[in-house]
Amino acid sequence: MPVMHLDHVAIVTPDLDLGSAPYLALGLQPEGPDEEVGTQGVRVRAFVVGETLIELLTPTRPDSPIAAFLEKRGPGLHHTAYRVDDLDAEMARLRSEGARFLNEAPTPGRAGTRVAFLHPKWGAGTLIELVEHAPGAAH
Amino acid sequence: MPVMHLDHVAIVTPDLDLGSAPYLALGLQPEGPDEEVGTQGVRVRAFVVGETLIELLTPTRPDSPIAAFLEKRGPGLHHTAYRVDDLDAEMARLRSEGARFLNEAPTPGRAGTRVAFLHPKWGAGTLIELVEHAPGAAH
Repeated sequence: MPVMHLDHVAIVTPDLDLGSAPYLALGLQPEGPDEEVGTQGVRVRAFVVGETLIELLTPTRPDSPIAAFLEKRGPGLHHTAYRVDDLDAEMARLRSEGARFLNEAPTPGRAGTRVAFLHPKWGAGTLIELVEHAPGAAH
Repeated sequence: MPVMHLDHVAIVTPDLDLGSAPYLALGLQPEGPDEEVGTQGVRVRAFVVGETLIELLTPTRPDSPIAAFLEKRGPGLHHTAYRVDDLDAEMARLRSEGARFLNEAPTPGRAGTRVAFLHPKWGAGTLIELVEHAPGAAH
């Protein structure tokens, strides 16, 4: 099966502490310290809920795509990410079915992952990410 | 632990078949037939991904909150839902921490569930739902 589970749901916030409040109230715990993903211009705080992470994203620079999202739409749900075993194989398979990606090749994601974003037009209006974890990683 | 796992991610689409295309391409399978939730004015198609469902929502009448969402924001991510064991107890606990709900009492959701929506202001800009399943339900 190409997709293993829902890896994470990404939520944009202007401030990681403000954005964390509801998830802490729900009893979720952060997974490790905040992490910066330079290629995306974001700082990420991840909360564990079962086999999925709730990832809060805040921009680290004005030209970050997340800064543009915040300005245009305000805080809120940004994308869903699906965990795959072999990202290169899955990109090739989806391309053969007509899918388009925002990045031609996998790029580095959070916590040593490799990621690729599908074009929102292909995702019927939502942004979908594929994530490949390093072998043996918990999430 | 009050929250057990991510029950579902809800995505608004003007058409369930169009909206299904990316999830079918990813290899996900629908869980049972489409279902109408009269209280919300929506028809729902649910895809299984691990312990979570991707729920596609389309409006069934013009005064549905989902029709208003579609008109204002277009297709896309709508809310996240967390599964709890005891919805009444969790609502009382969160209210004691200052949370506000859109519905005062639990209302019927999909597939025999009882649900409640937290106010988006409390959710730091996102709409959060709590879901209690009938005992023994798979999702």
